[in-house]
Amino acid sequence: MYTYDYLLRFTREVFLGMGCSESDSDVIADVFLAAELRGHSSHGMIRIKDYFQLWKAGRINVSPSVRVVHESPSTAVVDGDNAVGMVAAGRSMEIAIEKARNAGTGWVATKNSNHFGIAGYYAMMALRHDMIGICLTNANPLVAPTFSISRMMGTNPVAVAIPALSQPPFIADFATTPIARGKLAVSEKKGEKVALGFVQDKSGKPSDNPGILKEGGSMVTLGGDRLHGSHKGYCMSAIVDIFSALLSGANFGPFVPPSVAYLPVLEKKTGEGTGHFFGAMRIDAFQTSDDFKRKMDEWIETFRSATPADGQEKILIPGDPEREAEERIRKDGIVVIPAIENDLEAIAMDLGIDFKKSSS
Amino acid sequence: MYTYDYLLRFTREVFLGMGCSESDSDVIADVFLAAELRGHSSHGMIRIKDYFQLWKAGRINVSPSVRVVHESPSTAVVDGDNAVGMVAAGRSMEIAIEKARNAGTGWVATKNSNHFGIAGYYAMMALRHDMIGICLTNANPLVAPTFSISRMMGTNPVAVAIPALSQPPFIADFATTPIARGKLAVSEKKGEKVALGFVQDKSGKPSDNPGILKEGGSMVTLGGDRLHGSHKGYCMSAIVDIFSALLSGANFGPFVPPSVAYLPVLEKKTGEGTGHFFGAMRIDAFQTSDDFKRKMDEWIETFRSATPADGQEKILIPGDPEREAEERIRKDGIVVIPAIENDLEAIAMDLGIDFKKSSS
Repeated sequence: MYTYDYLLRFTREVFLGMGCSESDSDVIADVFLAAELRGHSSHGMIRIKDYFQLWKAGRINVSPSVRVVHESPSTAVVDGDNAVGMVAAGRSMEIAIEKARNAGTGWVATKNSNHFGIAGYYAMMALRHDMIGICLTNANPLVAPTFSISRMMGTNPVAVAIPALSQPPFIADFATTPIARGKLAVSEKKGEKVALGFVQDKSGKPSDNPGILKEGGSMVTLGGDRLHGSHKGYCMSAIVDIFSALLSGANFGPFVPPSVAYLPVLEKKTGEGTGHFFGAMRIDAFQTSDDFKRKMDEWIETFRSATPADGQEKILIPGDPEREAEERIRKDGIVVIPAIENDLEAIAMDLGIDFKKSSS
Repeated sequence: MYTYDYLLRFTREVFLGMGCSESDSDVIADVFLAAELRGHSSHGMIRIKDYFQLWKAGRINVSPSVRVVHESPSTAVVDGDNAVGMVAAGRSMEIAIEKARNAGTGWVATKNSNHFGIAGYYAMMALRHDMIGICLTNANPLVAPTFSISRMMGTNPVAVAIPALSQPPFIADFATTPIARGKLAVSEKKGEKVALGFVQDKSGKPSDNPGILKEGGSMVTLGGDRLHGSHKGYCMSAIVDIFSALLSGANFGPFVPPSVAYLPVLEKKTGEGTGHFFGAMRIDAFQTSDDFKRKMDEWIETFRSATPADGQEKILIPGDPEREAEERIRKDGIVVIPAIENDLEAIAMDLGIDFKKSSS
């Protein structure tokens, strides 16, 4: 078990050790630890090794010049200069917020970036400015469009954060697939089968094998099959891909570069790096901020008081599970499993920094 | 079988007969017939009776003053003045396009409106201006959030239209439920069961009874159940509701007024009328228009050439089925079933206009 502060400092030191600036390392560590706090450890400490290895392989730029390459009053295109994703994304969302301050809304498409951690982090940046925040990103291709077996899209998440007054904010952050890839990996490690409706084999037949991606299988889109609306999940995922890649000039769909060094760089490119899309909408570009937030309180209270189905206890508002996780984890600390502790120890050794395993 | 032109003229005359202006009647008829052409007859001639009865009941304003009540460089809030939904929506999308012309993007939240037909129509308005179009709307509550049995949300659709160069545009237009309500009605009329995963009974148990909504049942969100990601469909539907109602000042969730006169006006109001949300993004606020559209061609060609699963013929691009329907229907004509022909005949008689039944 680790304290939040310990892992934040350690993560910061890892990226400083890789040559990132102080301020970039701050942002990167903040995003990693936000994932841990919110209970999404699949995007937390477990991923540090991926970035470290990309850096070792010379595939990531630790001294980037993230810059606006095109703009209008409410939009900008940002070149991430192959930065660590958190750096390009954090700066892009700041630009969206600046644009919104003047134009009412701000929309930023970012190219030449990398995996940026949890999408919700950037959407939530808007909250302290009394804005609604939006964040989309494309990702490694693992997901097949409806009727297909080809891996054409990532789990392409959508995050939207909306402020309330006395209620906690509404924070939706979801992949456009029925299940996150990380959950497949966990089931595979445990030797468990998964429910049908998550993955298909290489002929397109529904599969309960969480390791099927290694055998030419693919994930399916939200909805599961055509009868149950998988074409709608495909639409959503496609919209995320087009906004992230085509508005920015990044690689789209099957050409999104791998976010791990053990997969080779793709030969064909359709743009630069990974793409993201950010939005910020000033509440008072539509309604008086207090009126809107009071109404959000009413919305949240109304939905929270919906009648539970038989066997259910309560109705959740998007963001509730993560907030509950954060309360628990801030108190109890962060668990890092031994295999990841070993990875972090090896990275620390390599960089000449200190890492104290809690289990040792 | 009817020609497009005949039904367009007839629909126009119905709304003129109800007292709508020439230009409003043009827009309304255009949206109704676009639904028929695109193969979504559930939003076509079958719905004219609903609007006629709302008008008879004095629940819709045929001489509205649709106006901007709040704005910023890239945003506006529109008061629909209880207009026929198509009138408020068409004007709102025009305002979004005008805003985008100056600010790069335009975002309009509309309150005090009514059912507006197919969302895709308004998203597609942006295409001829070299813009991406977006349209969301809330709707009558029929859908339960995950873990609940309370009907809190409509089928809250999302429409996004994106231009290409030599390929036809990408047009996604989908409800945030696995199935459209109209399909339940069709199965119910035929006395058929439906697959599990669309509706639940009043205790929250999955049901195959398409008429279960009349027995206290509810529709479920895209994903079907929690295991398969219904909480993601719930997030999407909630975002559509909040953008449509809370940014505009319309009624949210369970308080959206019924779009049919046989259901009473709700006692509790949380805003004015039904709410919509529109977006227009100028392509060249991000990329040179030709570059972007050439890339869209490449995106579409890439996805079209994905490998079909066993037993499937081809991969569809969002908008393909509707375009194919339109080609067929423009050639063959529009089918109106006898029950609806009778409704239209009765409306024509009431308004003193002419309607020639094709089946007589």
